[in-house]
Amino acid sequence: MPSNPEKTSRVRVTILVRIREGVLDPQGEAVRQALSDMGHSQVEDVRIGKVIEVILPSEPGIPEKAREWCERLLSNPVVERYEVVSVEPV
Amino acid sequence: MPSNPEKTSRVRVTILVRIREGVLDPQGEAVRQALSDMGHSQVEDVRIGKVIEVILPSEPGIPEKAREWCERLLSNPVVERYEVVSVEPV
Repeated sequence: MPSNPEKTSRVRVTILVRIREGVLDPQGEAVRQALSDMGHSQVEDVRIGKVIEVILPSEPGIPEKAREWCERLLSNPVVERYEVVSVEPV
Repeated sequence: MPSNPEKTSRVRVTILVRIREGVLDPQGEAVRQALSDMGHSQVEDVRIGKVIEVILPSEPGIPEKAREWCERLLSNPVVERYEVVSVEPV
């Protein structure tokens, strides 16, 4: 629920950073094995990435800035892909 | 694009695990500081959680099972909250 956006006008940028297909994900494999040990051997694959939420004042060009942050800081483009999924009022 | 779902019928369960509000997030704070050092001092807060994708054959009750996995294995309910955001054909 955006409370009084005219006063504060802050936004939440939500970014997903996932390991690329074909790149090993040891943490995901450990979870898959643990689920199998719990009796869920039907699980074929588990991949674990990051969800990053950035809170900042609303300003022009936020999606472009978020993509720049992903390129420069938030992801390793060699082995990860990123997605700016939403920019929403807080 | 679900390719021939009658034959394979696998699904991807997507789960978000976020650190609860009020709980410290040192990794997020480090990213906030790094963004500030890059000239983006307007960023107020950064929170870093996990996006977990589980691939398995379609079966009844998958959302309930995913919530059980979150409770027992994928999250620490004391400091994290989880959300099963989608169950989609692969």
